[in-house]
Amino acid sequence: MYTVRVYIYYKSGVLDPQSGAIKATLSDLGFDQIHDVETGRFYSLKIDAQDISSAQAIANELCEKLLTNPVIEDYEFEIMEA
Amino acid sequence: MYTVRVYIYYKSGVLDPQSGAIKATLSDLGFDQIHDVETGRFYSLKIDAQDISSAQAIANELCEKLLTNPVIEDYEFEIMEA
Repeated sequence: MYTVRVYIYYKSGVLDPQSGAIKATLSDLGFDQIHDVETGRFYSLKIDAQDISSAQAIANELCEKLLTNPVIEDYEFEIMEA
Repeated sequence: MYTVRVYIYYKSGVLDPQSGAIKATLSDLGFDQIHDVETGRFYSLKIDAQDISSAQAIANELCEKLLTNPVIEDYEFEIMEA
């Protein structure tokens, strides 16, 4: 059993509207020392696999088939033995 | 300058509808070895601060005032010197 955390974020150059909204609000709230905001999402899940390389293969397939939009998003993940 | 990554996720017991949708689709796609899916979002940002404890204080204030809904969400963050 492996615990996997998948992080998905926009490819560089892709418009990130949530980030634009946060930057505008940061300025309104006086957080002038914060910049370069990027947003993303993550998934935490468990995978039953024989070994870590099988778990990595399953996680890759999951990211490509279900969790990400490969046109505009990149992903990375970390795997820990649970 | 510090790079901060903030992770925000639902408190345990809060309904996570996106997770339910993913679980249903996992089963349809044949990913029977994946379970316990939880979802969250993250922000990556840079903070200008004198030292790491000031950066932590700013990051905490940011999470509480802007990034999270404290009624249903918890957060954690990691800080690296950039």
